[in-house]
Amino acid sequence: MLPRIVDGASLLFGIVGDPVAQVRSPPLWSALFRRNGINAVCVPFHVHPPAFAGFISGLRAAENVLGLFVTIPHKIAAAKYAGALTERARKVGTANILRPLPDGRWEGDIADGVGFVLALRASGQRIEGRRAIVVGAGGVGSAIAFALAEAGVASVALSDVDQNRAKALAQRIAVMTGVPSTVVPARAEGFDLIVNASPLGMRAGDAMPLDLAGLTAEAIVGDVVISATLTPVLEAARARGCHVQPGSAMTDHQVAPVAAFLGLETGDWGPAAVREALGE
Amino acid sequence: MLPRIVDGASLLFGIVGDPVAQVRSPPLWSALFRRNGINAVCVPFHVHPPAFAGFISGLRAAENVLGLFVTIPHKIAAAKYAGALTERARKVGTANILRPLPDGRWEGDIADGVGFVLALRASGQRIEGRRAIVVGAGGVGSAIAFALAEAGVASVALSDVDQNRAKALAQRIAVMTGVPSTVVPARAEGFDLIVNASPLGMRAGDAMPLDLAGLTAEAIVGDVVISATLTPVLEAARARGCHVQPGSAMTDHQVAPVAAFLGLETGDWGPAAVREALGE
Repeated sequence: MLPRIVDGASLLFGIVGDPVAQVRSPPLWSALFRRNGINAVCVPFHVHPPAFAGFISGLRAAENVLGLFVTIPHKIAAAKYAGALTERARKVGTANILRPLPDGRWEGDIADGVGFVLALRASGQRIEGRRAIVVGAGGVGSAIAFALAEAGVASVALSDVDQNRAKALAQRIAVMTGVPSTVVPARAEGFDLIVNASPLGMRAGDAMPLDLAGLTAEAIVGDVVISATLTPVLEAARARGCHVQPGSAMTDHQVAPVAAFLGLETGDWGPAAVREALGE
Repeated sequence: MLPRIVDGASLLFGIVGDPVAQVRSPPLWSALFRRNGINAVCVPFHVHPPAFAGFISGLRAAENVLGLFVTIPHKIAAAKYAGALTERARKVGTANILRPLPDGRWEGDIADGVGFVLALRASGQRIEGRRAIVVGAGGVGSAIAFALAEAGVASVALSDVDQNRAKALAQRIAVMTGVPSTVVPARAEGFDLIVNASPLGMRAGDAMPLDLAGLTAEAIVGDVVISATLTPVLEAARARGCHVQPGSAMTDHQVAPVAAFLGLETGDWGPAAVREALGE
C-alpha cells in the first residue's frame, strides 16, 4: 500500500502563483506537516491574474483550508483583496500569506522580509546601524526593505530599473518607519548590507544586479534568488570575504513566522526541521 | 526524505462535500495517480451548501485542477451551477463529477449509476429484462434508477419515505427513458433486482430498508452503503442464495468512467488497480 499523506479529513494549505510549477512549498510544507503529526497537505493552484480575486473568494468557502501562500504575480492583489491585513502587510502593501478569519474574511501578512532578517540573526549577523541597499523595489524587495528598517538599520537605499517605483517605496519607508530612505544607483560602495531583490542571477548570463566596486569584507550580501549553487553576486561577495546569505535561507526562516501566523502552535518549524523536510 | 507525492507542478483533483472527512477518494485517487505515473493528488474541500456556488466558481479559476468530485449534499447544486451537463447528468438532474471545459465552464456528469451497472456486469450478472426496485429516490438512487433503465431492465419501481420524491422520479424515468416506472411499497416480493439506495444500514440498529418476504435466490441485491462488512440487507440476501453487491463495488467501478470523463487516456483505472490502491 502506498503512503496515505492525504485523506478526507486532511487540512489544506495552498500556494497560488502564475506560474506555480517551480515553487518548493508543496513538498516542503507537506513534509513538515507530516513530521509534526498534522494531517495537512500543501498543494499548488495555478491562477492567472484576472481570475485571482474570484479564486481567493471561492477558496475561502472551504472550511478545511489552513491558509494560502501567495507568490508572483499576485502579492499586491492579495493585499488588495484580503479583507484584513497585519500592520506590516499594510505598510509594505503586499501579502504573501493569507489566513482564514472566523468571520469569513482572509487576513494577509507578509513574511519574506521577516524571514530575511531572521536568517541573518540566526547566522549571528548584526543588522542594527548598518547602511543597507536593496536592489529591486518589487514585492520581495519592498518586504525586505521594510523589515530591515524595522530591524534597526541606519538607512535603506533603494535601486530599481524603474526609478519611480524605487522613489515611491523610499518615500513610504521614510514616512512609515522614520528610517532615512533614498534612491541610489546600483552600486555597493558605501553600503554594508547589500540585498539583491531583483531577478538577476536566476538565469545563466544575467548581468550582476549591482556594481561591486568598493565592496568590503565587512558587508553582508544577501540574495533572494533561489539557486542550487551560489548566485554570481554571492560568489563574488564570498571571494571578498563577505558574509553571504542565499535565497533559500530567507524562505527557510519564513516557515516559523508563517506557522505562527496560521496558528500552528505545536510542532517544530525551525530551519533544521525545514532542511530535514527538504531532504538536505 | 519523505515521499513527495505533491509538488508545484502537481495537478489537483478535488472532492467537495459537507461533511467530507469520511470520503475515500483522496487516498484512493492519489494512489491511482501515482500508480499510473501522473503527477496529481486528490484533496478534500469541506464546503457548506450556501457557499457551494461561489466555491466551484472560484476553483474553476485554477488552471491545474483536473476535476472535482461532488458528494452529499451538493449533487443537485452541482448540476444546477455547472455550465454544461452530459446527457445522463441532465436526465438524472444531479452531478457527482465536474470537469473543466476549455471555455471556462464546468461540465457535470453523474457516474455512480454507471458504476453500479458496470460492477454487476463485471460479476457476470444479467441486467436486461429484470424487474428492478430501487429503495431511496435521492441523488444516488436517481442515478442508479436511470442507469438501470438505460441498461435494459423491464421496469424500475421506486420506493421512498418521501412519496412525492419517488413519484417525481418515476415520472421522469418513464418520460425520459420509456421504461415503465412506478412507486411501490418497500417490499422485495416480485422483484429480481433490488437496490438499497437509502442510508439504512449505515448505523448499527437501522431498520431493514425493505421487507425481504418473498425474496428469491434468482434476485440480485445491491447496496450503496459502504461498510467494512456486509450490510444486514446483503447478509440476509446472501443467506437466501442471492448475488449480492456491496457499496464499494459501485464506487470501485466508477473509477474507469470518471477517468475517461476527465480525459485520463493512459493508465490502469480498473477494479484491480483500485483494490491495489486501497491496499486491499
